[in-house]
Amino acid sequence: MPQKTAYDVAVVGATGAVGQKIIQLLEEKDFPINELKLLSSKRSAGSKQRFKEKELTVEEATPESFSGVDIALFSAGGSVSKALAPEAVKRGAVVVDNTSAFRMDENVPLVVPEVNKADLQNHEGIIANPNCSTIQMVAALKPLKDAFGLERVIVSTYQAVSGAGNQANMELEQQSKDYLDNKEMEASLLPVKGDKKHFPIAFNALPQIDVFQDNGYTFEEMKMINETKKIMHAPELSVAATCVRLPFFTSHAESVYIEVNKEGVTVADLWNELKHAEGVILEDDPSAQLYPTPLSASNKEAVFVGRVRKDPDKENGFHLWVVSDNLMKGAAWNTVQIAQSLIENNWLQR
Amino acid sequence: MPQKTAYDVAVVGATGAVGQKIIQLLEEKDFPINELKLLSSKRSAGSKQRFKEKELTVEEATPESFSGVDIALFSAGGSVSKALAPEAVKRGAVVVDNTSAFRMDENVPLVVPEVNKADLQNHEGIIANPNCSTIQMVAALKPLKDAFGLERVIVSTYQAVSGAGNQANMELEQQSKDYLDNKEMEASLLPVKGDKKHFPIAFNALPQIDVFQDNGYTFEEMKMINETKKIMHAPELSVAATCVRLPFFTSHAESVYIEVNKEGVTVADLWNELKHAEGVILEDDPSAQLYPTPLSASNKEAVFVGRVRKDPDKENGFHLWVVSDNLMKGAAWNTVQIAQSLIENNWLQR
Repeated sequence: MPQKTAYDVAVVGATGAVGQKIIQLLEEKDFPINELKLLSSKRSAGSKQRFKEKELTVEEATPESFSGVDIALFSAGGSVSKALAPEAVKRGAVVVDNTSAFRMDENVPLVVPEVNKADLQNHEGIIANPNCSTIQMVAALKPLKDAFGLERVIVSTYQAVSGAGNQANMELEQQSKDYLDNKEMEASLLPVKGDKKHFPIAFNALPQIDVFQDNGYTFEEMKMINETKKIMHAPELSVAATCVRLPFFTSHAESVYIEVNKEGVTVADLWNELKHAEGVILEDDPSAQLYPTPLSASNKEAVFVGRVRKDPDKENGFHLWVVSDNLMKGAAWNTVQIAQSLIENNWLQR
Repeated sequence: MPQKTAYDVAVVGATGAVGQKIIQLLEEKDFPINELKLLSSKRSAGSKQRFKEKELTVEEATPESFSGVDIALFSAGGSVSKALAPEAVKRGAVVVDNTSAFRMDENVPLVVPEVNKADLQNHEGIIANPNCSTIQMVAALKPLKDAFGLERVIVSTYQAVSGAGNQANMELEQQSKDYLDNKEMEASLLPVKGDKKHFPIAFNALPQIDVFQDNGYTFEEMKMINETKKIMHAPELSVAATCVRLPFFTSHAESVYIEVNKEGVTVADLWNELKHAEGVILEDDPSAQLYPTPLSASNKEAVFVGRVRKDPDKENGFHLWVVSDNLMKGAAWNTVQIAQSLIENNWLQR
């Protein structure tokens, strides 16, 4: 089949935090679109949205919505993906899914284009976009793994509230105002909407993202552990994670400890690899107080790395500080990159 | 010399964030005081302060201020301690110093009473109170080191702005208000007052606490590394730290990875030691979403530990989440505890 020059694209979850960023990027990157369908839950359907010169109406997502759709970008929660992604595939669409619904399925490629673009070739209709905190970490670690080998990763995260959606942003804003006005803070969403207890996030830190698993780790931590191994094709890699929600709106930061295989590696060697890595920007100059922060990384596509140091004791151990916009590279931008890769490499067809 | 029943006590830096907490604790704990002298810089002298039923006037600290003083509690910055602590000692006082001025001096005990109270016996007039982020970590690790041996510590911190003093609290408050009002945020203090650049802390994270050293670590990180070894009498212990300032007012949190010596240790074994440890409260029940947070630990004396987990790969590796009020156990309470220990054990005399 000859390749098209423009595609019918559906965005599922068009009114959400990630959906909005996807629409913005499709326009900014001049993605080759024939028709753009904006889909959502029944509740949000009917709202209007500008795209390029047109005003589009958001429609309720149903199985029939995907007739004629070439590429469907899902970010409306796991239950929506589970129900509708197979329907979209049945109707001929290729799905890029932002939820955790299919990530660990053997037949579903889990892709960060800078790390494992070639895995896209094996898709059977669904491609999974990894968890936000995983994406930025593997993007930073990939060049180091290629150059020096990677034995071990221990990460502690500093994650923005927007990873829990627009409502979490509003909760942080309202709580912050109330605290500064000496009013009682009300918590009804974080750390996890569906969990039993809720705690204030404003002027606080919550060491729980997503629900707890039987082993004492949260699901967010297990996502980082399992997804990292799958994306990097490294089942033997040791990965441990502690995930913490913090009172800022955008960008996740990560304190990452790694052990490399190769001996005699220096900070300058790491800098050199990171400087030339795709999608990575090195911001690391202590003498100029240069390092990335959540605010400095916001609304940018890259993964920023700073504070690269040698471990004081472990010969092959290094510490890094990795920051990226969780809604951009952590979600919308990686999704759009996957769609771009599918087109550029003619990998849409199964 | 027969021991006194009440002591002349001086608080240097009486108007600062830590000084205020010290005065509050001296009253709450009914510390055996004969006369309380409140001292400060010339700028803050003259202000009034209630202590029990009396109104006291804060006086300018000079060498002569310490005549007749038995115990002098310093928290007015390193330069004040360097200038006046030796003067206080010359006049017969025992100094407990909250700054980093003397901490690594061989002849100065660096003490967390729950960890190394006996070191107080070796004082030559000056005793150093460790760095806030160090105190809470060693308090949590001490029972584990005693029971299982300790080989390695990797810590990533989540530190409150009040560690940088009352002005930092005001900066966070003002920036938060400005951001919520869509105004430009002004930064003139954090990350480090005396450093070249300043960045907003509100709705942000700054991976710099104190100035950078030649090895790429900040001075705060080196304090955690060096002080931990000194307090725990463990020069061979591997310690690495990444210290991050965050937008909350009180309490530091720490994601701590440890490796123990003993084989076959379980999370239940760690829980058991932490449950019975002096000064430590275990708050760890994932099924009930029980874990400490900066807000939950504020204004409390204990060090709180939660999220105890086994490393997924390393047999002797464990992860913990340690939270404590940086102005209480991290500063004022540890200082008052040291003074109490000196009296209870009759260790004031040299």
